Amino acid sequence: MLIGPEEIEQIALGAAFLGTGGGGDPFVGKLMALDAVDKYGEVELIQPEDVPDDDLVIPIAMMGAPTVMVEKIPNGTEGMQALKSLQTRLGKTAFAISPIEEGGINSQIPIAVAANLRLPLIDCDGMGRAFPELQMVSFTLYGITATPMVMADEKGNALQIDAINNLWTERIARAVTVQMGGSSLIAIYPMDGRRLKESCVRSSVTLAMDVGRIISDARTHGSNPATGVMEHMKSRVLFKGKVTDILRRTTAGFAKGEATFQGLDEFSGRSLKVRFQNENLMATLDGEPVAMVPDLISVLDLESGLPITTEGLRYGNRALVLGSPCDPKFRTPEGVKLVGPRYFGYDLDYVPVEDLVKS
Amino acid sequence: MLIGPEEIEQIALGAAFLGTGGGGDPFVGKLMALDAVDKYGEVELIQPEDVPDDDLVIPIAMMGAPTVMVEKIPNGTEGMQALKSLQTRLGKTAFAISPIEEGGINSQIPIAVAANLRLPLIDCDGMGRAFPELQMVSFTLYGITATPMVMADEKGNALQIDAINNLWTERIARAVTVQMGGSSLIAIYPMDGRRLKESCVRSSVTLAMDVGRIISDARTHGSNPATGVMEHMKSRVLFKGKVTDILRRTTAGFAKGEATFQGLDEFSGRSLKVRFQNENLMATLDGEPVAMVPDLISVLDLESGLPITTEGLRYGNRALVLGSPCDPKFRTPEGVKLVGPRYFGYDLDYVPVEDLVKS
Repeated sequence: MLIGPEEIEQIALGAAFLGTGGGGDPFVGKLMALDAVDKYGEVELIQPEDVPDDDLVIPIAMMGAPTVMVEKIPNGTEGMQALKSLQTRLGKTAFAISPIEEGGINSQIPIAVAANLRLPLIDCDGMGRAFPELQMVSFTLYGITATPMVMADEKGNALQIDAINNLWTERIARAVTVQMGGSSLIAIYPMDGRRLKESCVRSSVTLAMDVGRIISDARTHGSNPATGVMEHMKSRVLFKGKVTDILRRTTAGFAKGEATFQGLDEFSGRSLKVRFQNENLMATLDGEPVAMVPDLISVLDLESGLPITTEGLRYGNRALVLGSPCDPKFRTPEGVKLVGPRYFGYDLDYVPVEDLVKS
Repeated sequence: MLIGPEEIEQIALGAAFLGTGGGGDPFVGKLMALDAVDKYGEVELIQPEDVPDDDLVIPIAMMGAPTVMVEKIPNGTEGMQALKSLQTRLGKTAFAISPIEEGGINSQIPIAVAANLRLPLIDCDGMGRAFPELQMVSFTLYGITATPMVMADEKGNALQIDAINNLWTERIARAVTVQMGGSSLIAIYPMDGRRLKESCVRSSVTLAMDVGRIISDARTHGSNPATGVMEHMKSRVLFKGKVTDILRRTTAGFAKGEATFQGLDEFSGRSLKVRFQNENLMATLDGEPVAMVPDLISVLDLESGLPITTEGLRYGNRALVLGSPCDPKFRTPEGVKLVGPRYFGYDLDYVPVEDLVKS
């Protein structure tokens, strides 16, 4: 299938949900993708199976704090530069581009780069959502190294990194991203078709598109899309309430903080806290966890049902907070070690959202 | 001429003086250089004129806070790795190696790498002393770009940087060095023989060796080397006193701080402050500047005449503080802009040490 303007709009909407508060507002990325598709034609969406085993796949993403990404706009060529440098380094051209995360702006950047370079986009990613750090991908679980990777900024600075493991890649690239002003474009996890097929999270682009379509269809009919999204994502309602406190700090390349909600309707008198590091990590209802990473915690505007990003959350927002199961790859012991609550400093064992909140 | 164990000892001694407090204690580097020369043979010291115009020169250095460098010992292969990666990137092998600064440990690292790779060392550098930041070299004054550069750490992490200018190279490389644990090995400012000849500070290795020989000869004869060094370096006495206060902080990849000395003998009742960022930057006598960057401010042990590094300075040290003129390349308006007092945040015009302190 082809990704054109309509699909871009839907993917952006769905990726705002899958971004679980992070991944950046898709708006800027959407404009880049729309512009690229307008200039260079629609982008072919292929399946992992369509990639020959020995051909090269390069995932492309923006790195940084979403609070910065909405203000520091890419010049549009960094992603191409990063991909081209990585190709030169590897002595091989990419068969196709993959998203690394299907959340927020990173659902759009790969479309823009794919259109520009007339390459197909693969219907997969490394998360099936958004996570805040580079090593937090299914690729890591399959022993795929993040490097060689290339980073580029809008000023023209570029780097190649060869790190001893994916955590070191994150450390080094994060420090450079901070110097670059808080965001950068990266070409990372170069791999062949064989490895992609075994390690990727499948159908991520389609998932974003489906969720986006549910949202836009509901809006066309003047109805609230929350029910449809919940059904599609197998989500649980975590809370219904009003933001009474929001603490947000952009530090060390991340937007970190927490939001407190006071209950409405059936949640009246109760209180929910959502802690985030770019993405929402942990939701506690009156102090008890109701959803945690790697499961998805999404905040939707109560009236419109539209996803609200971390940096868009404001005092007084009336919201529906949903918890949705993550991809099964992240529910294995290795997956939970990589992106579960303990990695983020919570002294809690991971419990799936379906077990914490009965439907 | 050849650099063997005796020359290495002398260069290390002289480079401790030229390091003006920074550049790291040459001790660790000296052991690496002695070991390499022992294993692979002595290193040929050539002049810039001996490098063919179109042949490649690669300067090699350690980057980081000297306080870290004395504790985090290189594994000995990072420098070679960095140089080899840069050669691969450039598609050309180096004709010779150059020091970037002739201060402290960086007088030794290039000898070790040159011995290992059986390459000649060029009798020059980019400073004629030590400075704390990568862009602070005569090469910058001649429009030579620091990148492509390669960084490597002892764990096996490596990076290639292509920055838009030398200040950005410093920013990015410094942030990575901090992540790497505070020090890294770099291959930087690749250039051809033609550009080296027009831009380098000549005879820096010989200068370190000469100063070192003066110091070691005096010590052999039981005399204080200070007079001989002062004559050779055209130094002025800035102060004679005892360290009564020393503030040192390793922050953002630098050792920053200040030392206060209370006067002895003819300086009795007076007080000297020396401020440093890795290297000594500014000396004020009772609040009035008596020497400032780019001139050299060196602290010598009063009894032995041996140079004391910033990280070696202790409460109670009795010291002779000298000011010596820097290379004329740094006394031009461009030179003063690059490494003069205003760059380091002092609201002062540069005045040569000879004009501040009459002999």
